[in-house]
Amino acid sequence: MVQIPKAAAPSSTTPPLPHSVPTSADVARLAGVSRATVSYVLNNTSAVRISEPTRRRVRAAAEELGYVPHAAARSLRAGHSRIVLMPTPAVPMGPLYHGFIDELQWALGRLDYTVVQHGSVGLRGEEAARAWAELRPVAVLVPGTGIGPEGVAVLRRSGARAVVTIGPEAVEGAHAVLLDHHSVGHRAGAHLYARGRRRIGVVVPEERGLGVFSRPRLEGVRRALSGTDGTVTELPLGYDEESAARLAARWRALGLDAVFAYNDEYAMLLMRALQDVGLRVPEETAVVGADDLMLGRLLRPRLSTVHIELPAGRDLAELVDRAVRDPGGAPERRTVRGATVVHRESS
Amino acid sequence: MVQIPKAAAPSSTTPPLPHSVPTSADVARLAGVSRATVSYVLNNTSAVRISEPTRRRVRAAAEELGYVPHAAARSLRAGHSRIVLMPTPAVPMGPLYHGFIDELQWALGRLDYTVVQHGSVGLRGEEAARAWAELRPVAVLVPGTGIGPEGVAVLRRSGARAVVTIGPEAVEGAHAVLLDHHSVGHRAGAHLYARGRRRIGVVVPEERGLGVFSRPRLEGVRRALSGTDGTVTELPLGYDEESAARLAARWRALGLDAVFAYNDEYAMLLMRALQDVGLRVPEETAVVGADDLMLGRLLRPRLSTVHIELPAGRDLAELVDRAVRDPGGAPERRTVRGATVVHRESS
Repeated sequence: MVQIPKAAAPSSTTPPLPHSVPTSADVARLAGVSRATVSYVLNNTSAVRISEPTRRRVRAAAEELGYVPHAAARSLRAGHSRIVLMPTPAVPMGPLYHGFIDELQWALGRLDYTVVQHGSVGLRGEEAARAWAELRPVAVLVPGTGIGPEGVAVLRRSGARAVVTIGPEAVEGAHAVLLDHHSVGHRAGAHLYARGRRRIGVVVPEERGLGVFSRPRLEGVRRALSGTDGTVTELPLGYDEESAARLAARWRALGLDAVFAYNDEYAMLLMRALQDVGLRVPEETAVVGADDLMLGRLLRPRLSTVHIELPAGRDLAELVDRAVRDPGGAPERRTVRGATVVHRESS
Repeated sequence: MVQIPKAAAPSSTTPPLPHSVPTSADVARLAGVSRATVSYVLNNTSAVRISEPTRRRVRAAAEELGYVPHAAARSLRAGHSRIVLMPTPAVPMGPLYHGFIDELQWALGRLDYTVVQHGSVGLRGEEAARAWAELRPVAVLVPGTGIGPEGVAVLRRSGARAVVTIGPEAVEGAHAVLLDHHSVGHRAGAHLYARGRRRIGVVVPEERGLGVFSRPRLEGVRRALSGTDGTVTELPLGYDEESAARLAARWRALGLDAVFAYNDEYAMLLMRALQDVGLRVPEETAVVGADDLMLGRLLRPRLSTVHIELPAGRDLAELVDRAVRDPGGAPERRTVRGATVVHRESS
């Protein structure tokens, strides 16, 4: 991290206009040293010996002028930045994911990276990669796999030393943290089968962008039930009360005795709709969610769920750092497999 | 937005190493033009007349080399960037806020700004402002007011043409979008009083960083009840089941007949705990949340809530753009006052 001198308190209530932005040349002039010296001192470079009085003079000048180093200029000089870019996911993510991001940002900050999140509003694949490349990040952490191998190549060509995808599949040329959504579905299916359920519905959200998670979860349930006397029925569901009421209205006709509801939020929505048409949970239909949110414990019956381990923020930060230091290394693959059923009252 | 040429598909499975990052000089050499011409063409500058064949030649060369413009270099040339920096809030925000952020990013993108979110992990006030200033944003949109006037001054000195805070109070030197949390509490208090409740509890979350919202909400309830025969009792509550159970266990001793629970999530937590100790909602205690989340409609009884208008993303994007164009203008103050009670079954 660059040592940033404390800025002086503003002496007037009106901040100076942009044309007065102090530069390192101003600091050099005031301190009576070269610009290079200013750069060495403010970047805490230990490779160059500079006397303590000179360092103090530079810091005092920077403070007096309110000078802040310029990340862009520094990255141009260094040939790369310390920016780790994290595009924000295109789909709404739950509290579990936000906690993970917070921990990751903290861990990367400790390794002297600056984490920048970037909205990918409306951009996909290569197009998104080019927008991100303009910031010249030293590493990019991409949620999902929509960037594709072409997008990875765009980022690598623009100087990103590491691209890491976080999702159910690996992308050529990128490191991958593989979230095993298949096993989430498999655990839920095996649990329901072991509890004596045979006709199992699986909620597949209709919301765009969730297929990358819901398809492997569905496939996992199918795999858990394959070769048994159980059946799996796909249940498209939009995240609103009307869709849930429509599904609940035809529930008895479907003849299901259990449902894996994609996650806890869809499970809450569907369980409420089932209860509203008089279905008893879990007697007539067992319900299992995923994510282990607190809301599941507040529901009645208490919601059974699949607890999903996310990669530890510190581990992922270290993977990024290793990859940045060895940009030519072979892509790492790391699979996070910690899915466990939390059995409560709804199943 | 800069017109970015389509990059060629990678010809090899191994992306080239960083030392081969193509520069605008490479593009100029391949196209047989000056670097300035490359810059004009790729930045779509209309001020300079360049023939269509030359433009095509530059674009083809950029495509062949996989060249992506460098935002940092461009911002150094221009003296400022098109980056709008949005620090991510230090406290977990609900789905309402995330929807607002998405809309805002989209609206700023339409005005050719690049929205960058920046984690403020562990940084506060001036220190946070200096970290943000390193990215030389043209504007900064700060959630909350913790940056203080000194932080605003740091950002202005480093070239930010506009600083806009979004929170309950204005900060000297910055434009302000004022969210009127006071009126959220006032509406809830007035609603409960009108429903015949007289002994009203107000949940104050114990989680750090929420005081800036919870204090004006509590004060709003007090104001609504002042001069009446109603009383207001402050109820500290942590967001976990144990805290809620402890509060519920002493509920009858408190003698309250209503509670404004800060928001829908705390309301769900507390209502569940009250029901678990056998209290009837709303007969014995009325419960009102805030935020109007879907989960409130799924609870039984259905949760009454205060619906809060956030500023429209497009309006806020236009405020930012106006401020960037007129950096010396007087700070704008805009108050968002759209708080309305949604009366359901819990009150």
